[in-house]
Amino acid sequence: MFIAMNRFRIAPGFEEGFENVWRTRDSHLESVPGFSSFRLLKGPSSDEHTLYASHTIWESRAAFEAWTESDAFRKAHAQASAPKGTYLGHPELETFESVVE
Amino acid sequence: MFIAMNRFRIAPGFEEGFENVWRTRDSHLESVPGFSSFRLLKGPSSDEHTLYASHTIWESRAAFEAWTESDAFRKAHAQASAPKGTYLGHPELETFESVVE
Repeated sequence: MFIAMNRFRIAPGFEEGFENVWRTRDSHLESVPGFSSFRLLKGPSSDEHTLYASHTIWESRAAFEAWTESDAFRKAHAQASAPKGTYLGHPELETFESVVE
Repeated sequence: MFIAMNRFRIAPGFEEGFENVWRTRDSHLESVPGFSSFRLLKGPSSDEHTLYASHTIWESRAAFEAWTESDAFRKAHAQASAPKGTYLGHPELETFESVVE
């Protein structure tokens, strides 16, 4: 089992707009081979930012990497983006393999 | 749905010993109210360390917090620890609420 988390630092006051982008977009993930589940997670907040992470579970790293090169990936990332000022820096991708369950 | 991740930076060469601690310990989690699932995740490696994260899903933040004050928590954390030199710094706890599923 493989988990991909993309970490986003969101400017104070922009949280709701950011969440709405995820609520309303069509991820096209359900039909992707090896896809298991998607969630958007809200993490800790400070005066400077709120941490969010997209959290996607896959059967394997290979399934995730195949998706990143697919039409479904391009479609999901070609949709409406968040308001200007939402993001503090670039998202940071972290990937994990499950080693003990 | 609530996720608690504890992030560990492990010294090069100590990965297997660290994983074994998690493989062999009795977490006492199955009987804890509100507990859903546990995994140990292996993240990216660099010359300096390998990132691991314990990844525990709960029904709610309240269920997680009740567990941290329980006998089950004390028992799980009173067991054999990893070899000296395993940890680079303290673990960092990050907690998340699922906001879009």
